[in-house]
Amino acid sequence: MGLMGKVLIAQGGGPTAVINQSLVGAVLESRKFSQVTHIYGALNGVEGIVNQEFLDLTSETTRNLELVANSPASALHTTRVKPDEKYCAEIFKVLKAHGVRYFYYIGGNDSSDTVRIVNEYANVENYEFRAIHIPKTIDNDLVINDHTPGYGSAAKYVSSLFVGLNLDNIALKGVHLAIVMGRHAGFLTAASALGRKYPDDGPHLVYLPERKLNIESFLQDVKSAYEKYGRCIIAMSEGVKNEDGEPIMKSLVDDIETDAHGNIQLSGSGLLGDAIADLIRTKLNIKKVRADTLGYAQRTFIDSISDVDALEAREVGEKAAHFAIRNNVDGSIVIDRVGDYAVSYRLVPVEEIGGKTKYMPDDFINVAGNDVTKKFVDYAKPLIGSGILVPSRLMAEKVSKIKL
Amino acid sequence: MGLMGKVLIAQGGGPTAVINQSLVGAVLESRKFSQVTHIYGALNGVEGIVNQEFLDLTSETTRNLELVANSPASALHTTRVKPDEKYCAEIFKVLKAHGVRYFYYIGGNDSSDTVRIVNEYANVENYEFRAIHIPKTIDNDLVINDHTPGYGSAAKYVSSLFVGLNLDNIALKGVHLAIVMGRHAGFLTAASALGRKYPDDGPHLVYLPERKLNIESFLQDVKSAYEKYGRCIIAMSEGVKNEDGEPIMKSLVDDIETDAHGNIQLSGSGLLGDAIADLIRTKLNIKKVRADTLGYAQRTFIDSISDVDALEAREVGEKAAHFAIRNNVDGSIVIDRVGDYAVSYRLVPVEEIGGKTKYMPDDFINVAGNDVTKKFVDYAKPLIGSGILVPSRLMAEKVSKIKL
Repeated sequence: MGLMGKVLIAQGGGPTAVINQSLVGAVLESRKFSQVTHIYGALNGVEGIVNQEFLDLTSETTRNLELVANSPASALHTTRVKPDEKYCAEIFKVLKAHGVRYFYYIGGNDSSDTVRIVNEYANVENYEFRAIHIPKTIDNDLVINDHTPGYGSAAKYVSSLFVGLNLDNIALKGVHLAIVMGRHAGFLTAASALGRKYPDDGPHLVYLPERKLNIESFLQDVKSAYEKYGRCIIAMSEGVKNEDGEPIMKSLVDDIETDAHGNIQLSGSGLLGDAIADLIRTKLNIKKVRADTLGYAQRTFIDSISDVDALEAREVGEKAAHFAIRNNVDGSIVIDRVGDYAVSYRLVPVEEIGGKTKYMPDDFINVAGNDVTKKFVDYAKPLIGSGILVPSRLMAEKVSKIKL
Repeated sequence: MGLMGKVLIAQGGGPTAVINQSLVGAVLESRKFSQVTHIYGALNGVEGIVNQEFLDLTSETTRNLELVANSPASALHTTRVKPDEKYCAEIFKVLKAHGVRYFYYIGGNDSSDTVRIVNEYANVENYEFRAIHIPKTIDNDLVINDHTPGYGSAAKYVSSLFVGLNLDNIALKGVHLAIVMGRHAGFLTAASALGRKYPDDGPHLVYLPERKLNIESFLQDVKSAYEKYGRCIIAMSEGVKNEDGEPIMKSLVDDIETDAHGNIQLSGSGLLGDAIADLIRTKLNIKKVRADTLGYAQRTFIDSISDVDALEAREVGEKAAHFAIRNNVDGSIVIDRVGDYAVSYRLVPVEEIGGKTKYMPDDFINVAGNDVTKKFVDYAKPLIGSGILVPSRLMAEKVSKIKL
């Protein structure tokens, strides 16, 4: 009957719109196994483990779990703490004391590192223990994975948002710039292109962190697009780099905030957008230039959840229970694309995921480095799911003018 | 059989998510009247009239019109031009030359003024002519109207966005501020409160242009909320005023851009949000403070269209044809609330709408001036329509700690 004991689940890193699907998939599936005595949820990720802040999810009602599954953001709350060896030793001590035999951590590559280190402690102490990393990140930057849960919904929000910006920009011409999340990988910014329908639809220019940005050629791009379309929509990643490989903000603004990890604070602030808008306004002498900086809505917007993303997030949660409890193995769950469109799930050693970043492959980015390719669109369209709303234009002919 | 001639329709001012419903309602209904020889759509609002940039919508297919109705932003494009007497004389000359006998202008109170002046020219010249103002504005600030088409969808977007921000803020605590559109009227900012479900849900503080903001009491509000909830979500209108009745930005930032009408440029820029976030960070010594400035998505987001709003926008378009063609009268269409929830439409003289602004009534704002009342929530909830997604929380009990 296998390893008897408790399951502990936690959520780490930034929230997504579907991370609770993974939580609920893991809880409901784990409840089916008789060797599972209790299912605990740790509050605030690893912080809640060392502080023993556990919710007993064993008798949470199925209905309420389903309601929570459809709610964005981490229902168990989360943390930005990235545990070191000592922290992981603390985690292991608590897990052992509570008789936890199965540990699932839903998160990005930092979370997979935690899973790896905790599991090493278990091995050293000969404590029978299964640890599973369940993938999630709106950045879509986990290696090996075709894509990651959370990305599809964030991509749908960004795509829908640019559909609206494009229609707005057709109605009231000018230059419109929007800064999209994504510090290192451009997948979310690239999603701005998924709603294009007519040949002149924006975004007309898409700038990704995978390509260095030369300010002069950027301005030339904007000028050309503006002359061609009489308007211009620009999608720019918050992580776009200058030619020295530093954040473009470094070339544009003086006053930047850094977080505890020494990263430059790139989101939740209008600095970059305003600086780029000013640049366009002054250098190209275009009057109507507006910048939006997309905020936390990118990861938690409730009206733009992708059904495909939600179902896959649910499945990776379920699979955690299958792998850990039924198969008695450790690892990180990855998503493979096995059809158009179909996926399957498998387990890889967690060390293959941790500390690595997946970038947009070269064939997803055009040669000029200012747009995505059709290959990217074909890749990403299935991920934003079904029921995508598509706008249309009037097709009527113009009336002849009268000499007054 | 009534006045024979052409119908001309135009769209003015800022786009909304449902303004094309009004366009399509007016076109399809006008096509049913045999005295209507053609239906023209003017491109770019009044600019397209003086330049005779007309689309012949008489034979646009019904299917395509329905597709356009479901597309956000102004399908006939729009303009920020606010015509003076001379401009209106030009408009009238063109209308007369093309044999336009029915003129519908979809817009806010500037547009209603245009309708009034053009109609005066028709009267002076004894030209038989019917002119109808069809209401639209996300600001919900047209007098007499219970509410205006466009508001419900913008309100749904803002409400949904704060639902996500609230869940995100529960998962990762801190202070989160979001700046919402609305230069003079606070209705859209107030919509941030519509998704609150649990007693501690944010926004915890809502600041509207109808109340003057004292920086010291604002900081005290934030401090109290942060102490009470361990976090704080703030909704603030871009039009919030300081104690001298000037935009609060004037008290906070030096460098502000003004538009052609001498208005201070308040949207599409992170200045206000960043300044307020800095203020909270430095004065209250709270580390994690983030500001989002909501952008044009507020008026054009395709995934958050309110069904009630869309249907009412359609109906005011239809009514334009009924009033002008069947009833042979002029005026501005207004929406009355006649039940819970039910509306009816009537016509008032356009001069009763033009140049006036409706503000949030006192009983929609709490005494402290930092939140909305239940009365506002009861007023606004029907407008965001059906199918609203509501999140849930885990209800499980905490597990006892073990002495390690």
